[in-house]
Amino acid sequence: MTMQNTSLPANFNGAKPVINPDDVAMLLIDHQSGLFQTVHDMPFTTLRSLAATLAKIATLAKIPVITTASVPQGPNGPLIPEIHANAPHARYIARKGEINAWDNPDFVQAVKDTGKKQLIIAGTITSVCMAFPSIAAVAEGYQVFAVIDASGTYSKMAQEVTLARVMQAGVVPIDTAGVASELQRTWNRDDAAQWAEAYTGIFPNYQLLIESHMKAQEVARSGEKLDSQ
Amino acid sequence: MTMQNTSLPANFNGAKPVINPDDVAMLLIDHQSGLFQTVHDMPFTTLRSLAATLAKIATLAKIPVITTASVPQGPNGPLIPEIHANAPHARYIARKGEINAWDNPDFVQAVKDTGKKQLIIAGTITSVCMAFPSIAAVAEGYQVFAVIDASGTYSKMAQEVTLARVMQAGVVPIDTAGVASELQRTWNRDDAAQWAEAYTGIFPNYQLLIESHMKAQEVARSGEKLDSQ
Amino acid sequence: MTMQNTSLPANFNGAKPVINPDDVAMLLIDHQSGLFQTVHDMPFTTLRSLAATLAKIATLAKIPVITTASVPQGPNGPLIPEIHANAPHARYIARKGEINAWDNPDFVQAVKDTGKKQLIIAGTITSVCMAFPSIAAVAEGYQVFAVIDASGTYSKMAQEVTLARVMQAGVVPIDTAGVASELQRTWNRDDAAQWAEAYTGIFPNYQLLIESHMKAQEVARSGEKLDSQ
Amino acid sequence: MTMQNTSLPANFNGAKPVINPDDVAMLLIDHQSGLFQTVHDMPFTTLRSLAATLAKIATLAKIPVITTASVPQGPNGPLIPEIHANAPHARYIARKGEINAWDNPDFVQAVKDTGKKQLIIAGTITSVCMAFPSIAAVAEGYQVFAVIDASGTYSKMAQEVTLARVMQAGVVPIDTAGVASELQRTWNRDDAAQWAEAYTGIFPNYQLLIESHMKAQEVARSGEKLDSQ
Amino acid sequence: MTMQNTSLPANFNGAKPVINPDDVAMLLIDHQSGLFQTVHDMPFTTLRSLAATLAKIATLAKIPVITTASVPQGPNGPLIPEIHANAPHARYIARKGEINAWDNPDFVQAVKDTGKKQLIIAGTITSVCMAFPSIAAVAEGYQVFAVIDASGTYSKMAQEVTLARVMQAGVVPIDTAGVASELQRTWNRDDAAQWAEAYTGIFPNYQLLIESHMKAQEVARSGEKLDSQ
Amino acid sequence: MTMQNTSLPANFNGAKPVINPDDVAMLLIDHQSGLFQTVHDMPFTTLRSLAATLAKIATLAKIPVITTASVPQGPNGPLIPEIHANAPHARYIARKGEINAWDNPDFVQAVKDTGKKQLIIAGTITSVCMAFPSIAAVAEGYQVFAVIDASGTYSKMAQEVTLARVMQAGVVPIDTAGVASELQRTWNRDDAAQWAEAYTGIFPNYQLLIESHMKAQEVARSGEKLDSQ
Amino acid sequence: MTMQNTSLPANFNGAKPVINPDDVAMLLIDHQSGLFQTVHDMPFTTLRSLAATLAKIATLAKIPVITTASVPQGPNGPLIPEIHANAPHARYIARKGEINAWDNPDFVQAVKDTGKKQLIIAGTITSVCMAFPSIAAVAEGYQVFAVIDASGTYSKMAQEVTLARVMQAGVVPIDTAGVASELQRTWNRDDAAQWAEAYTGIFPNYQLLIESHMKAQEVARSGEKLDSQ
Amino acid sequence: MTMQNTSLPANFNGAKPVINPDDVAMLLIDHQSGLFQTVHDMPFTTLRSLAATLAKIATLAKIPVITTASVPQGPNGPLIPEIHANAPHARYIARKGEINAWDNPDFVQAVKDTGKKQLIIAGTITSVCMAFPSIAAVAEGYQVFAVIDASGTYSKMAQEVTLARVMQAGVVPIDTAGVASELQRTWNRDDAAQWAEAYTGIFPNYQLLIESHMKAQEVARSGEKLDSQ
Repeated sequence: MTMQNTSLPANFNGAKPVINPDDVAMLLIDHQSGLFQTVHDMPFTTLRSLAATLAKIATLAKIPVITTASVPQGPNGPLIPEIHANAPHARYIARKGEINAWDNPDFVQAVKDTGKKQLIIAGTITSVCMAFPSIAAVAEGYQVFAVIDASGTYSKMAQEVTLARVMQAGVVPIDTAGVASELQRTWNRDDAAQWAEAYTGIFPNYQLLIESHMKAQEVARSGEKLDSQ
Repeated sequence: MTMQNTSLPANFNGAKPVINPDDVAMLLIDHQSGLFQTVHDMPFTTLRSLAATLAKIATLAKIPVITTASVPQGPNGPLIPEIHANAPHARYIARKGEINAWDNPDFVQAVKDTGKKQLIIAGTITSVCMAFPSIAAVAEGYQVFAVIDASGTYSKMAQEVTLARVMQAGVVPIDTAGVASELQRTWNRDDAAQWAEAYTGIFPNYQLLIESHMKAQEVARSGEKLDSQ
Repeated sequence: MTMQNTSLPANFNGAKPVINPDDVAMLLIDHQSGLFQTVHDMPFTTLRSLAATLAKIATLAKIPVITTASVPQGPNGPLIPEIHANAPHARYIARKGEINAWDNPDFVQAVKDTGKKQLIIAGTITSVCMAFPSIAAVAEGYQVFAVIDASGTYSKMAQEVTLARVMQAGVVPIDTAGVASELQRTWNRDDAAQWAEAYTGIFPNYQLLIESHMKAQEVARSGEKLDSQ
Repeated sequence: MTMQNTSLPANFNGAKPVINPDDVAMLLIDHQSGLFQTVHDMPFTTLRSLAATLAKIATLAKIPVITTASVPQGPNGPLIPEIHANAPHARYIARKGEINAWDNPDFVQAVKDTGKKQLIIAGTITSVCMAFPSIAAVAEGYQVFAVIDASGTYSKMAQEVTLARVMQAGVVPIDTAGVASELQRTWNRDDAAQWAEAYTGIFPNYQLLIESHMKAQEVARSGEKLDSQ
Repeated sequence: MTMQNTSLPANFNGAKPVINPDDVAMLLIDHQSGLFQTVHDMPFTTLRSLAATLAKIATLAKIPVITTASVPQGPNGPLIPEIHANAPHARYIARKGEINAWDNPDFVQAVKDTGKKQLIIAGTITSVCMAFPSIAAVAEGYQVFAVIDASGTYSKMAQEVTLARVMQAGVVPIDTAGVASELQRTWNRDDAAQWAEAYTGIFPNYQLLIESHMKAQEVARSGEKLDSQ
Repeated sequence: MTMQNTSLPANFNGAKPVINPDDVAMLLIDHQSGLFQTVHDMPFTTLRSLAATLAKIATLAKIPVITTASVPQGPNGPLIPEIHANAPHARYIARKGEINAWDNPDFVQAVKDTGKKQLIIAGTITSVCMAFPSIAAVAEGYQVFAVIDASGTYSKMAQEVTLARVMQAGVVPIDTAGVASELQRTWNRDDAAQWAEAYTGIFPNYQLLIESHMKAQEVARSGEKLDSQ
Repeated sequence: MTMQNTSLPANFNGAKPVINPDDVAMLLIDHQSGLFQTVHDMPFTTLRSLAATLAKIATLAKIPVITTASVPQGPNGPLIPEIHANAPHARYIARKGEINAWDNPDFVQAVKDTGKKQLIIAGTITSVCMAFPSIAAVAEGYQVFAVIDASGTYSKMAQEVTLARVMQAGVVPIDTAGVASELQRTWNRDDAAQWAEAYTGIFPNYQLLIESHMKAQEVARSGEKLDSQ
Repeated sequence: MTMQNTSLPANFNGAKPVINPDDVAMLLIDHQSGLFQTVHDMPFTTLRSLAATLAKIATLAKIPVITTASVPQGPNGPLIPEIHANAPHARYIARKGEINAWDNPDFVQAVKDTGKKQLIIAGTITSVCMAFPSIAAVAEGYQVFAVIDASGTYSKMAQEVTLARVMQAGVVPIDTAGVASELQRTWNRDDAAQWAEAYTGIFPNYQLLIESHMKAQEVARSGEKLDSQ
């Protein structure tokens, strides 16, 4: 029996499988109002917040964003407005009915135009709109990070099966917090407050923490007395 | 065995147990950032949205709102800002450490000042901050509607026990949607769009419905073709 | 302390609180495609099946059905087609924006036209569309059976609160199976097979039971051998 | 407003609402193999164990048991064998298709023959087979204890609705442990070990407790050393 | 139809159904190590913490406590040590095998000896050890508060059924937070810090809040800089 | 340490691990009425719908289907009728008691007769009827796609363990939506409406979306006014 | 990038990773009454039934069984009696305190004495008693099948982590149904009825299926009429 | 197709992937009061207990511990005090805002100073504070054991995704019980009682087991009679 470490994902060739903020683009695929009604692996409100936060993070980190939608004129509905609102620099690519965005030449070209080697991909339906382009991009040599919880699908089981499938194909699975922190790297930066605000879209309790923290410090500084005293 | 219908709640004296938009005030008690961290009968984000929506509805329905907080200088934290932001006309009453807001004479006086016979009450912690004033108000002759899901507590079991307790004491239990619709009464009103927007804080799927509906109608009106055609 | 049995619901005056198949009408309110997207107290597929089954049962039991919808031209969407498909004799009443169907005079008149004393009511959203007319009908002297699980609302908590509220107001809570069996009364009737089929909409496992039962009997009668023999 | 305690259930006339072991009979209705496949308010294995335990307890407490089944020749299937195995003295009443066992004159006569004033009732489907006879028996003056968790139905919501309905009708709700302990009354009795064994059907952990307890005492008495010493 | 408010619980005779700190005793029944293994309506660790907290609160509020255990020499196991550790003034009453503590004359006498009219009762198994004495005490004229979540039983369904049963018998249901706050009444008291500490046994997040609050104030007061600056 | 990408599943030899619509057959194994009663990793109604949809999709995509059943004359029951109804071209192979369909020479021959290299396999019980033939087919050189959620088993844990096992053996895990979309490829095709209808069996919310979308467009086109106007 | 199929588990060297009934032994480790109280990844009653069924299956399949316990004189408690009752041929090995059974030379020798190359291992606590010997046995060249659901641990998360760990170490994960069917292979065998009975310990619904099936066939054969006819 | 066993995690080079108590250090990262409020993959009380137990175990096993915190002056809050209380020998490293502790040179140096080849790592947020240093340490040649359940994150899905990601990167996943037992190795040691006590922080039922066991043995030894005798 030969034993060796062969667990690294596709296309890293021995490199540490982490996001390189300088060599990465983000693909946000089919986050549409109609499709969101079909999401049952998490509350769709969580998905909506996480997808919107991804767009915001991409803007903070100054990385390119490409969006697309699947027949938004039909029951799938329009893209949720937060995506482009939070990433005004995003480039939208209309498809011609192809389910796999990677089957659309304009989309692939837009990806190539970014000149990046790494792709952060999120999409609804996870099982399809995220998984198919992720597998395709790996096959073409990209290092792919699939953001499982900024994608949504019809059941927890479907999510788990898709996680397994894309890992098997060499994709790196990641969650939204992982993407944010790997892009941010340090709190010792000028825009730290904006990053803190972005995390409230991932950890809603963080908003409470900030509110309580500010009040506690303000009370301490001002010497305000307790109402009960 | 004597049989009769005796199930009506306290202080209705045979009247139909519904909200009278012209004779009701709303009490929003202790919706504070620290206390929200302890809420486990629902995601606190749901509570935050429902409590904020109650405030918004009170404004739309033009009913008086009284707020208060329990020692906001301590670990309980400050009131969440949405309450007063959504109900700028609300009157805040500081307490002197009393846990039951009804034990504070200023608070009771503020309630009396509204001149209303009915009270819509929500509070965090449900078991305490909502329940105690509700029971006290019933005992003083008010018709009380306790908004169970715009209040939050430490466990689902605690919520269920409190629901049972306040009903037994003669309080009418109600949910946030019930309050909204009983105040709104009809869609045939000028501010219908504002009410529709308010419901998105209660039923988040409603926001998706509106987005999809508007897009579908726009496509139909403009004759826009499907991307896949 | 005086003790007596006072637990009977409103308007029964000591009578046994059960459905009288000869004196009952069914009201199916606002079972609309858009509103169903907001239902979270059960899978909406369960609600869809139970509501459709209620309509089917009303037909089998030959009881009048009245339907209505809340602004079906807007985001609430159209009535699901199964309702009228399964109860072709149902009478549809258009409202003029009133949230509480009982606020619409045409609806109340349609109820009166049936000449029945008992009402079986189901509606989506439970908290509003089922609860408001139920409370109103009790106040006007009807014996009301609210079908909690053929109604749907935005959270389990909202459903529980509404159950509590309508009970407190004198409504009899019931589930879809209870309605079906109280109307059917006996298996010793010519249309027993149609009732059995109707139950598969309430207990999906019942369909499997019927399939297995028929095969088992067929094998026994035909003397078919096991494949494994 | 008149205030008084009127919460006691039907037919107790001020007496404490508890089981009188000397004046009670048990009715076990429609615990059938096919129907058990449709049970989803608890694992049916739990229901099977609790129903079987009720029969065992009735035998230990020497109270009469009446059983019946709904068309056991069809998809509903046969009674589970544990019922009569654990209560060999039970009297089986065949019905003629009536869904409500109380609609069958033989069944009602069998109940009357016991000469008891109190009835402990469990049945599958809870919503129907337990609820209908319970409501009927209350209406005829019996004190009825409905064993909610030795009955099974198609959803947790259906169980909750049925609990509410039968309480409203004056039935006392109880769980299997409550029945067992109210019949047993004391551990200071010769058959205490048999009762302890019966509780393992209600609290499966109790079997582990007994096993561990006996081993611990045996080790202490024999001075057996730990394997690790 | 006569309508009146008759919902108040037993023995209050129109008084507000709240705890009177000066006229109440606490009964803690059968909180034993073996029985705790059978608890499944909540994590037993939650029960253990809530029951221990009740004992602590009784000490802070200086109210009498009576404890008892069911055959602690057998599989039920010993009382958990926190009960007497937190309420050193508690009086332990050994029973002689009676399942219902109220069937033991020494126990009833101990209750009478306290001279209190109100009883706060918690016990494991809820269905039995809490419910039976609660119903008995109501029948003898006590005002009874049953602490549902400082009691534990074998399933959530059993808890719900027992809550319904004891309410129907006139008991006031309450949760541990309700008991604590109704006894404490105000934060404007010398032992406020001890009460705050007690709440960490009810709301574990409260401990985090206190830790974070103290640190935030300390940082503000000392002018300590962020590590990231 | 040598590092390389070795995560591709069995028998792909470096090719992209996706379904080739032109070189794939579908095996639907043991979807029987009795076995479905034992399914607890999802509601069996979900399984029934997904399995039926797979059959429908195979017909739309014109790929061969082979079915089989395990001793359908016994408690396992007959194949659910939707399978052959939705895939009338399917070929049924009777087995002689072999649990692993791949142990039956007729079954293996039928697979070979299709001349396809890829197999889409679903079966109930997942742990056995799906897993065993999948592992066997991989060992014989097929590229195997196991449809986890169109298979059913006795617990979520059993499903997860089986997913892990078949992946470890080189099988590609996939969900029903993944199969459908990988076969469909584009909405720009004549039978797009039939595919849309098929997705309602996978995403039940999609049916609501279509209903709402059609109504919204119809209202826009016809200029129908809101009832509330 | 080199691509190849390397997913087969340890020590199979390219062989199909399935159980060989002729070359396998079963190790049942630490299924003790005390430890079972700590199990929370599934109801311990499920674990008890699955572990007992494994022992029964080993007997039917005539494969060697080795058992052991961790300090059964202490709080861990005695082995549950079903293990040896169902596998009377099992060999018990006492350990000397070693947590990992594989650290005990007698245990390893007993395994070697069987002369088998494959091991089916189940143990409580999964994280420890199952995982450690499984990893050790793989390292010594055995082909190991870890029965995840006939093992139990303190949380679902702990189970999932352990599943991942043992897979990573080269173990084949399997569920109890997989073990049973891989050993049984075919229903065309003389002891088929005993195997069917064994499956009722894995799929409790199977017992209902058998009961219903036998009754249905008996009714068909005897021409018994429906009670309702 | 080449087949070989390549599943061993990174840096083991064919060695058995288990903890070597003599060559391992523990890193406890960012277990802070504020961050704990955001944890939702398990009750944070469970996380608090498991993290505190890890520290205790490190002390018992005499292995080095390094701690650090992320900006404890801000909303993240202070380290929970149990960490250093239970591991007084732990070395605390302040960071300068780096999110990934491994980006801080002092931290990496502290790890190197231990001279150990294996690292046991737990951190909150799992997705970030645990995952990033784990992946980095693997890349630098360490054998890394990630304690998934002594780390906490914002959702179960995030935990699952992170487990997948770190495994893919070559990390060994493990649970707290696995760490404890792999360090302890045997009960045949002088400090066995301290280890037993430590397990009560992992398996809370174990505390009940010990209490019951000691009482049972004491009763047996003293010949104490049952209260019921």
